[in-house]
Amino acid sequence: MSLHGVRALVFDVFGTVVDWRSGVAREAAPFLARHATGAVDPAAFADAWRKRYQPAMEEVRSGRRPFTRLDVLHRENLDGVLPEFGIDPVTVPAAELDELNLAWHRLDPWPDAVAGLTRLKTRYIIAPLSNGNIILMVDMAKRAGLPWDAILGAEVAQAYKTSPEAYLRTADILAMRPAEVCLVAAHNNDLAAARKCGLQTAFVYRPLESGPNRTPPPADQAWDVNVNDFAELAAAFGT
Amino acid sequence: MSLHGVRALVFDVFGTVVDWRSGVAREAAPFLARHATGAVDPAAFADAWRKRYQPAMEEVRSGRRPFTRLDVLHRENLDGVLPEFGIDPVTVPAAELDELNLAWHRLDPWPDAVAGLTRLKTRYIIAPLSNGNIILMVDMAKRAGLPWDAILGAEVAQAYKTSPEAYLRTADILAMRPAEVCLVAAHNNDLAAARKCGLQTAFVYRPLESGPNRTPPPADQAWDVNVNDFAELAAAFGT
Repeated sequence: MSLHGVRALVFDVFGTVVDWRSGVAREAAPFLARHATGAVDPAAFADAWRKRYQPAMEEVRSGRRPFTRLDVLHRENLDGVLPEFGIDPVTVPAAELDELNLAWHRLDPWPDAVAGLTRLKTRYIIAPLSNGNIILMVDMAKRAGLPWDAILGAEVAQAYKTSPEAYLRTADILAMRPAEVCLVAAHNNDLAAARKCGLQTAFVYRPLESGPNRTPPPADQAWDVNVNDFAELAAAFGT
Repeated sequence: MSLHGVRALVFDVFGTVVDWRSGVAREAAPFLARHATGAVDPAAFADAWRKRYQPAMEEVRSGRRPFTRLDVLHRENLDGVLPEFGIDPVTVPAAELDELNLAWHRLDPWPDAVAGLTRLKTRYIIAPLSNGNIILMVDMAKRAGLPWDAILGAEVAQAYKTSPEAYLRTADILAMRPAEVCLVAAHNNDLAAARKCGLQTAFVYRPLESGPNRTPPPADQAWDVNVNDFAELAAAFGT
């Protein structure tokens, strides 16, 4: 482990800090019960909605589309995914779809997240470096009690991970060298992109991110820190 | 008072939340004692440094200069103001000037600020809408215990107040109509610009901002809220 000189910890959020799959399923369940003709598994709906996440951001990363905040992409993706479940979005009041889109603002943290962040905050600047937009992160933090020092991430950097600009602009905004910033994430590809930019890296294994029946890949590089939860993370950083 | 529908309170910071004059004077005093040839009043030095603040931002507001964060403008202004006090900045180690520039990160809140913000945070999103940049606001908040939900402001909006974009982009980032956002400030010109953009407005009178011998102007319009401190502000917003 090489933690020397870290001054800020920035966090992937969906999957790393919060359980997006259970939260979206919980929020979507009453909507699906009202609108789907047959029985729909809300977790399968959450997976299908999430599947459109990377392709939508890729339009921005590739330069084919100007930066567009995630709430807008999620809303478009909702219109796209509903027909897969036999629902024509045109038949649903827009206000109801807008409300369902806020499911992503109402995700529960993993049980260890708030306590770990609270410990880390005593010694480090802590902030999300998420692809989620600012108001999404603010709503989530207020509901869940996530004690961020600031809301950073794609909307502030105007670039989606895993574009290098997402990491490098975040370090620049913090007025730090990249090596003074550590990305915390449950995803190897996010950490690999951060490491290429010179950030330090902490892997947190989240076995339940994709549900009880799918085991996520473990660390595939020797990340600077490799832990199983935010209690171990806080301890690794001396807090 | 017209507070109906406000969901977020955004705050001017220098003068409204924190006492910039005393803080900069306190931080500058040992520097001036080391480097000035005669006796220099640290408060006069703070005033002179601050006097260059609006002209520096006007270069950006006018479009003559691309957006440049306030830490950079403060540092340039420091080089500019030192000769007024008989100090040639070229003779001072750059690291010492960089350190003095962080005086703006170390300002104390007015005595009522933290308690009032803590009350308001229970019901509203609270965030700075300051011309100070993100890391300046983060360092200040961590030192002073300011419980912001997010750090908004000029660097996020990429526009300095009193440009309309500073207010309008902040409301847009919050996914709110301007009337759902209330600017809190001790300065009539800031509130006037926010009102023109459709924001609600709360004036807080800060009699000591410019020191004990200068009385700041009182409210010069019927702002939506007009109070004397953040305890009254919190009460006006029902918290």
